[in-house]
Amino acid sequence: MNDATIESVRDRLRDFAVARDWGQFHTPKNLAMALGGEVGELLAEMQWLTDDQVHAKLADPESRNGVEEEFADVFLYLVQLADICGVDLIQAGHAKITRNDGRFPPSSEES
Amino acid sequence: MNDATIESVRDRLRDFAVARDWGQFHTPKNLAMALGGEVGELLAEMQWLTDDQVHAKLADPESRNGVEEEFADVFLYLVQLADICGVDLIQAGHAKITRNDGRFPPSSEES
Amino acid sequence: MNDATIESVRDRLRDFAVARDWGQFHTPKNLAMALGGEVGELLAEMQWLTDDQVHAKLADPESRNGVEEEFADVFLYLVQLADICGVDLIQAGHAKITRNDGRFPPSSEES
Amino acid sequence: MNDATIESVRDRLRDFAVARDWGQFHTPKNLAMALGGEVGELLAEMQWLTDDQVHAKLADPESRNGVEEEFADVFLYLVQLADICGVDLIQAGHAKITRNDGRFPPSSEES
Repeated sequence: MNDATIESVRDRLRDFAVARDWGQFHTPKNLAMALGGEVGELLAEMQWLTDDQVHAKLADPESRNGVEEEFADVFLYLVQLADICGVDLIQAGHAKITRNDGRFPPSSEES
Repeated sequence: MNDATIESVRDRLRDFAVARDWGQFHTPKNLAMALGGEVGELLAEMQWLTDDQVHAKLADPESRNGVEEEFADVFLYLVQLADICGVDLIQAGHAKITRNDGRFPPSSEES
Repeated sequence: MNDATIESVRDRLRDFAVARDWGQFHTPKNLAMALGGEVGELLAEMQWLTDDQVHAKLADPESRNGVEEEFADVFLYLVQLADICGVDLIQAGHAKITRNDGRFPPSSEES
Repeated sequence: MNDATIESVRDRLRDFAVARDWGQFHTPKNLAMALGGEVGELLAEMQWLTDDQVHAKLADPESRNGVEEEFADVFLYLVQLADICGVDLIQAGHAKITRNDGRFPPSSEES
């Protein structure tokens, strides 16, 4: 297995859930709430910091670990939710970039 | 370019931002807020539905499109936020699964 | 009715839901997701702005309206979720401040 | 002071922040992120439960305490964010209900 792919992450998550019989909990709504919960934890990592302080936190190996773990939690629930919903994140992402290319000509304001 | 990789998405997002001079807006806090905003829209797609109704919505091509677009928005901001923070989502995801494997022996309760 | 109270808002929301037979949708999980969705919209109002630009947006009557509406949406779902769960927000809020008073002596760092 | 009002909560939060010199952190964006973080924790309280299990959790005094504390955290950051932005939550809430009364005639579908 090439473990640099999103599919390798998805497959390990599937195995992980099967081994623990957690599939019963992994409904779309439950996973969406879990995703929302983890995004909240990622926001909390940065809430009182300036952007410069966020970068300093990321430059320190120890505090960086905590932030990376929050990124991982968000990513893992997003992958699981997409899997349950049959959504291919990379394909959907490319499609959306292509659509945005048409909607926002270069020099548009971010909105 | 192999466009089935997360890097291919990241690279298009970088080009997209450069072409519009949007890099100035893409600070960690701004992108984290945008991520939170898009997760909110994904939650909204499901909020009044049962899980069965969510699956029915996904089975209908037209309403599926809207949901896929929300997935894409969440994914794209997550990729951009990770990029700005120098986080490799797939590597961080694998590391977290490995850690969880130790923390939750098979037969643990989901928590 | 004194409409400057949180109870006056709660009571109108109860009547509103009864008149539309929406009580069936107002389960704890659904309302929690709706709350998450509306907080996402509030985040989106500020995501690309500096704090000074947020204050400027609030100083302009027209754009202020949009932000106030997002505040209202968050507040209304929080009141409904608390109502369904039998939680008194003001009492719970006071109890938490009292607890925080003990946990964070003056001169603590925000955490 | 009548401590059954939202203003009594707001005033204690103001004093709390002044005593700790935390006003410097309480910018709109920071407080909005903190609000998002706390809503995430409230979602997490319910994510793996059915609605019946949420009600059972609320019926147990000990586990109820934890949920009430998450409600309090969401409420307190919402009150602080509204205060910084000069928004009257109750007034904005009533205005929105009045607007919704026009938008959703009785018998509308929840959307």
